[in-house]
Amino acid sequence: MATGRFLAFEGIDGSGKSTQASRVAKGLEARLAFEPGDTVLGAALRELLLHDFSSDPTSVAEALLMAADRAQHVETVIVPELASGRHVVTDRFNGSTLAYQGFGRGLDRNVLEQVLSFATGGLTPDLTIVVDCDLETARERSTGLKADRLEQLDPSFHARVRAGFLTLAEANSSWVVINGEQSLHEVATAVNAAIAHHLGLEVKE
Amino acid sequence: MATGRFLAFEGIDGSGKSTQASRVAKGLEARLAFEPGDTVLGAALRELLLHDFSSDPTSVAEALLMAADRAQHVETVIVPELASGRHVVTDRFNGSTLAYQGFGRGLDRNVLEQVLSFATGGLTPDLTIVVDCDLETARERSTGLKADRLEQLDPSFHARVRAGFLTLAEANSSWVVINGEQSLHEVATAVNAAIAHHLGLEVKE
Repeated sequence: MATGRFLAFEGIDGSGKSTQASRVAKGLEARLAFEPGDTVLGAALRELLLHDFSSDPTSVAEALLMAADRAQHVETVIVPELASGRHVVTDRFNGSTLAYQGFGRGLDRNVLEQVLSFATGGLTPDLTIVVDCDLETARERSTGLKADRLEQLDPSFHARVRAGFLTLAEANSSWVVINGEQSLHEVATAVNAAIAHHLGLEVKE
Repeated sequence: MATGRFLAFEGIDGSGKSTQASRVAKGLEARLAFEPGDTVLGAALRELLLHDFSSDPTSVAEALLMAADRAQHVETVIVPELASGRHVVTDRFNGSTLAYQGFGRGLDRNVLEQVLSFATGGLTPDLTIVVDCDLETARERSTGLKADRLEQLDPSFHARVRAGFLTLAEANSSWVVINGEQSLHEVATAVNAAIAHHLGLEVKE
């Protein structure tokens, strides 16, 4: 049986990446996955990372917790699904740790890559799609939602994260950037074209 | 102001290491510390690692959570205490991750060393004391206590962990092994002698 394909969406909160991940997972009959929090362990870690301000992880602890969440996700969800022949579409993966904890928090990206390689057993997405948009647009889209521990950091942090995603995409041939400032229909069309081009898969309506 | 000295006790559960760590911390007027669980974040991680069987971390996730606990402990407790001139005595440190997740779980020890170096910022104890004892002795001492997630693993796991501690001690000149099968008085005398020899510190009664 053929192995499923592994697709990751990345981007800042409010970019529209979750909407695309959900739509694409449906159109490919894929497993929709997300990080952090997509396992029993992960749900507890998500709470500590994003919502429990009292635990206040240091930048290094934060990176290691994200990696622990990913390790659990890869071994107990993603790898079994792919092995069964099912495609997996994940909302965030390694790119988010490199962008948020590397470019955002300023941790050494080579060391982070080693930690992530340990966490994932070397698994990387067949295609990573960055949905990019302006910080101002993202903020407008998130209006009314309660900001989590990372979202409430200052705009310069989020600017570094956004620039980090673009830098990572430039350096990786399996990454593409989609302009998330376009209309929903235009974004969807561009995402589908990237998936057809890179993976040879058609996203059904 | 002089920096405090950093001392770690290692060994299997029931070896008597915690009794020694507590006695030595008192006798040196040091900060008594422990892993996992010695911070707000760490207490939550300890629960996930040792007591919440539903979260069931994979071996890799377990190692990363132990590393995250240590990162938080080092940056928010150990380093500030040492910098203030106070000695720190910790019940478990890097050695436990190498013994339990490396020798016990079978994870690559070179990769674990990289992860631990990231977690600790390169901090290592000035002296590591392994209190070694037979599995049977350790089990008898622990009778009546409820076994945690690691303690309830089979005897061959704990035999690998014990042998791991001894292997690590052989390879590190800042590690010493004390025979924990001796009387409490004999163990204390041997521990005090090691601290006097390696650190030039006297453990008061």
